[in-house]
Amino acid sequence: VLIYLNGSFLPRSEARIPVEDRGFIFGDGVYEVWRLIDGNAFEPEKHLARLERGLREIEIPLPDDLQAARLWNIARRLIVDNDLTSDEATLYLEVTRGAAPRTHYYPPPGTPATVYMAAARFKPSETLRRSGAAAITQPDIRWLRCDLKTIQLLPNVMGKQRAVASGAIDAIFVRDGIVTEGTHTSVFGVIDGVLRTHPADHHVLPGVTRAVLLQIASDLGIPSEETPMSLSELFEASELFLAGTTNDVLPITSVDDRVIGTGHPGPVADQLFQELRARMDAAGSNRDSGQLEQREDRPATVAD
Amino acid sequence: VLIYLNGSFLPRSEARIPVEDRGFIFGDGVYEVWRLIDGNAFEPEKHLARLERGLREIEIPLPDDLQAARLWNIARRLIVDNDLTSDEATLYLEVTRGAAPRTHYYPPPGTPATVYMAAARFKPSETLRRSGAAAITQPDIRWLRCDLKTIQLLPNVMGKQRAVASGAIDAIFVRDGIVTEGTHTSVFGVIDGVLRTHPADHHVLPGVTRAVLLQIASDLGIPSEETPMSLSELFEASELFLAGTTNDVLPITSVDDRVIGTGHPGPVADQLFQELRARMDAAGSNRDSGQLEQREDRPATVAD
Repeated sequence: VLIYLNGSFLPRSEARIPVEDRGFIFGDGVYEVWRLIDGNAFEPEKHLARLERGLREIEIPLPDDLQAARLWNIARRLIVDNDLTSDEATLYLEVTRGAAPRTHYYPPPGTPATVYMAAARFKPSETLRRSGAAAITQPDIRWLRCDLKTIQLLPNVMGKQRAVASGAIDAIFVRDGIVTEGTHTSVFGVIDGVLRTHPADHHVLPGVTRAVLLQIASDLGIPSEETPMSLSELFEASELFLAGTTNDVLPITSVDDRVIGTGHPGPVADQLFQELRARMDAAGSNRDSGQLEQREDRPATVAD
Repeated sequence: VLIYLNGSFLPRSEARIPVEDRGFIFGDGVYEVWRLIDGNAFEPEKHLARLERGLREIEIPLPDDLQAARLWNIARRLIVDNDLTSDEATLYLEVTRGAAPRTHYYPPPGTPATVYMAAARFKPSETLRRSGAAAITQPDIRWLRCDLKTIQLLPNVMGKQRAVASGAIDAIFVRDGIVTEGTHTSVFGVIDGVLRTHPADHHVLPGVTRAVLLQIASDLGIPSEETPMSLSELFEASELFLAGTTNDVLPITSVDDRVIGTGHPGPVADQLFQELRARMDAAGSNRDSGQLEQREDRPATVAD
């Protein structure tokens, strides 16, 4: 597997960062994950805009590698060299505040950010989507900037681990009796025929799939509201599902061992998934968009 | 500078970790900082107990390198080889859940933790302690396990940066109108003659210096209470100071540009500091304690 790190393409086994990297010392960075369909990214600009906002909010200057043309050139090479031009994959990008002697305050201006990018084959389980999955609830003890896609992920890690250890697919965070989101997914419910999800405030990540599904609901005439669900509403939902870049639409048929709705995936989740899938397939075959096409201006810093 | 990483002693410039280290990807780890006086650690067991508790709480098995005898042997070599047997220094130790393909849930059992240790010359500013320093307040947006010394430090990083950018020494976190702690310090106030600090619950780190100062207050007959200060109480304190392994006792004479007390360091802070300093000096000269002395059983894994 070839990855990109700070201007070089390297085998992953050789890709190493200094121990003083602020990602390793402070969790001082942001990341992004794109879905790749036949080598083309789905909603590339939405993910990039979120990354740029995250960098602005935590005050890391946009690295040169992440100027859009360069970013897509790097991605294109990872896709081609790792043989990901067909079928499905994910593209992972992480940016940290770079390596510098340990001080809580920022390192001197000019300290180069660390930029790591990797692509790998990946496809969500179709079987699981058809059967539905179990989830558990966990107290949402995370910080109050969950709108930023930072690498401050220990509570997410521990929530996911508890889910997996109990045979569930994910943990749904609940703060003050209100459902926020999953450990790496948005949570949607159907209550009285209305699609519901938490508003995009500082308690949840503004999910790209979340935004696409709300648009699809609007396009298909499915009533939707960005109104939080209480935990008791969640248990009375006719349908519940998780949504995200690596989950698409994943029906949840039980939570904390209590059956949700009919105990089977519901029609709203299926309708949304089919349209999402159609749009992903369209992005995959849209080879004229050029967003991930090879460009002339390959980055000069790249070690070939 | 020689550091320790996963069984080897290396120049810091050569010490690198895989990009897939969970410290770098998730902020999935804990750390500890000891103060060294003439090569001897101050309160070594209190720091080690806190580290062990943190590892237990986030479910990282205690690495073999951190069995106490081995840990002190590694520390001793870092102290000797970096010429830190006299004067003052800090010892930094970080443990992450190791390197593994990225999944939120834990990697397979047996995945070795990453253990990084480094020592460096360090002494708090005596000038600053004598003059007192300015602080600012910041909303405490951190997660609800601040009792764990994890590397989930982005809010601390941003708070400290805001302080430094405004000419202050630290940011004091305030949650729901209550003073919790600094970005890497405990906060103490003297109100109506009583020493006050936040109780050691999940909102603050159980600081080693904090615990020592409460013990000293008790020994010296200074009345103290682990009762939170409101922000308005903070502004009416006769004295305010920060305490921590890298700050000892640091008087704060203004907060958000408002003068605290007389605007000068006060007698309680000075009394506590003098006794803390005496105990640190005693630890430094206590060469019979053997806690950081070279042992026969040098770790077999160490690459010399």
